[in-house]
Amino acid sequence: MLEQFKITADDAVTVDPTALAQTTQGFFERVGIPAPDARVAADVLVRADLRGVDTHGVSNMLRVYLSDLKSGVINPTPKVSVVRETPAIANLHSDNGLGVVVTPKAMNMAIEKAKDVGVGMVTVGHGRHLGMASYHAMMALEHDMIGLCVTTAGPRMAPTFGAVPRLGTNPIAIAAPAGTEPPFVLDIATTAVAGNKITIAQRLGTKILGGWAADERGVPIMEAMDPPEHDVPALLPLGSVREMGSHKGYGLACVVDILSGILSGGGYGMFPGRPYNHHMVSAYRVDAFTDLDGFKAMMDEFLQTLKETPPSPGHDGVVVPGHPEWDTEQERRANGIPLHAEVVQWFRDTCRELDVPYILE
Amino acid sequence: MLEQFKITADDAVTVDPTALAQTTQGFFERVGIPAPDARVAADVLVRADLRGVDTHGVSNMLRVYLSDLKSGVINPTPKVSVVRETPAIANLHSDNGLGVVVTPKAMNMAIEKAKDVGVGMVTVGHGRHLGMASYHAMMALEHDMIGLCVTTAGPRMAPTFGAVPRLGTNPIAIAAPAGTEPPFVLDIATTAVAGNKITIAQRLGTKILGGWAADERGVPIMEAMDPPEHDVPALLPLGSVREMGSHKGYGLACVVDILSGILSGGGYGMFPGRPYNHHMVSAYRVDAFTDLDGFKAMMDEFLQTLKETPPSPGHDGVVVPGHPEWDTEQERRANGIPLHAEVVQWFRDTCRELDVPYILE
Repeated sequence: MLEQFKITADDAVTVDPTALAQTTQGFFERVGIPAPDARVAADVLVRADLRGVDTHGVSNMLRVYLSDLKSGVINPTPKVSVVRETPAIANLHSDNGLGVVVTPKAMNMAIEKAKDVGVGMVTVGHGRHLGMASYHAMMALEHDMIGLCVTTAGPRMAPTFGAVPRLGTNPIAIAAPAGTEPPFVLDIATTAVAGNKITIAQRLGTKILGGWAADERGVPIMEAMDPPEHDVPALLPLGSVREMGSHKGYGLACVVDILSGILSGGGYGMFPGRPYNHHMVSAYRVDAFTDLDGFKAMMDEFLQTLKETPPSPGHDGVVVPGHPEWDTEQERRANGIPLHAEVVQWFRDTCRELDVPYILE
Repeated sequence: MLEQFKITADDAVTVDPTALAQTTQGFFERVGIPAPDARVAADVLVRADLRGVDTHGVSNMLRVYLSDLKSGVINPTPKVSVVRETPAIANLHSDNGLGVVVTPKAMNMAIEKAKDVGVGMVTVGHGRHLGMASYHAMMALEHDMIGLCVTTAGPRMAPTFGAVPRLGTNPIAIAAPAGTEPPFVLDIATTAVAGNKITIAQRLGTKILGGWAADERGVPIMEAMDPPEHDVPALLPLGSVREMGSHKGYGLACVVDILSGILSGGGYGMFPGRPYNHHMVSAYRVDAFTDLDGFKAMMDEFLQTLKETPPSPGHDGVVVPGHPEWDTEQERRANGIPLHAEVVQWFRDTCRELDVPYILE
């Protein structure tokens, strides 16, 4: 997480993760999600907060989910159906189900298939937002598998040389187990910066940086600026400008649309009139390919060598993807999750509104 | 391809693609590769030239391959063995075989598995350079499958906050069929720029651009500069600097090392003392997931909408990944492949040296 987004002690209330999950589950149940599904949905959100991925935790996502559940945009009790299936793959129709409920089911299917044939790949069409993509990828870790999750989103990214948004932030998450080292967990938007970073900059009044966004004509903004009152016209792809490889970020966003949206038959993220998110999860069973202990030992060696890279001037060292989040998770499991006072007030109000006991303080 | 790298008419000789492939096959046969394998290897190289991917065609790669075949770094007659296998996956030991020979065999295995169970995934350890990665991904297209190919390379990329190279350019290639539109073909290094672009800038005396490389202390060079006489100290990841997402390009390069190098049991690209390239190819059969005609129609709609995006100022429009290369391939199949005079002279000399008839002019 970039320094500017850290929550300072002054305006934070630290809450117990279990109480936060229980409260969140209660909210989901009150808007019609069955208890077992509500428990998983709450776990996805709180896991993001535990890992310091506050952009995808309770403060940003929960109020959106509740609002969409109330308005019927999200179906609280979807009839998820299998469109096509083989021993290695499946395609599911999500029936407007919330991604934080349906995607864990899809990943469990992928894991079962990978147990049988080494790989499992499940596409999910006609779904809704799935929260922190790496949650689903990380489900593979306890089975000694590599996990993958990609998902489409509504248009935010202007493709290279384009003036208006045509692709979502379309994230890619991959998790791989190691031995003594914490697992490798990559979770990245294919834009230069995750969309929620702009929202948070607006809320905190911090700057948005050069290379993140385009102006209303589609021209990349390459200097830091104050966030506009409303949304930025478009986010830039990873690479920011063509000369630095923005066609690669744009191309990867297309790949996400193809592998999740189009391959599921659900659609793609290009039009605001199509409110769906489509997902694809995969699991690769390590010992189908190679010796598991050898794999883990080589992962440890790989990650340790990365960490031991001599640092460039002004930096402490190379960071392994997922390791800062791992450290944050250990710390927050022990000491609690800091929430903005404004978010805590929203929990107080919502507990009253939905008749859920307030247990955060 | 960036404008500065285009070969101008003044210093080019245009050659017939079939003659170029026949000559290249002849070279491979003379250094010990059996004729059927030599034919495939030549096809991989000439396909790159046909598509305008000159960095991975005969001019840059062939002399390296021949040198390494003569010195024994590449095994011309590898005994490729199956390490582990299921109906959906396989792991191959490449026995130091050339990637342009062994990877097409691996992709054919993946395609056969995808015919059976919808997906095929084949890792290849202990191999050598596989040429243009999209060649292997594109093999899936004629089977109405999506193809994927990733491969490790020796260390060129400095990870974010690191001072020295620790990862290869580790490319990712994905090809997806469409209906009336040419296929989508993405083929990208996970560095901001492909390594060979630096070599070509050195040969042509053109500038290397800001965001491409780090200096000898690991500090990103963000202004255009003349190429150094020898190699640049390190390439930057896609994203160039942390604030613009270089941790994403660095993370994707790690993923390539994990999915090809470590999952195959072969190793990873980090150490110059490990001369291997490791590969991973996958094929996804579209009609295992969804209706094929519906998929192709939706791909057409997706790609057409991208092309119809209003352009940003100073640009003609949005480019679909793989479409410029498609256009170049049609043009070069009809009119021939332009080669630098210096490259043609090398062919003349090598034909004499290896006793292969010179038929390019």
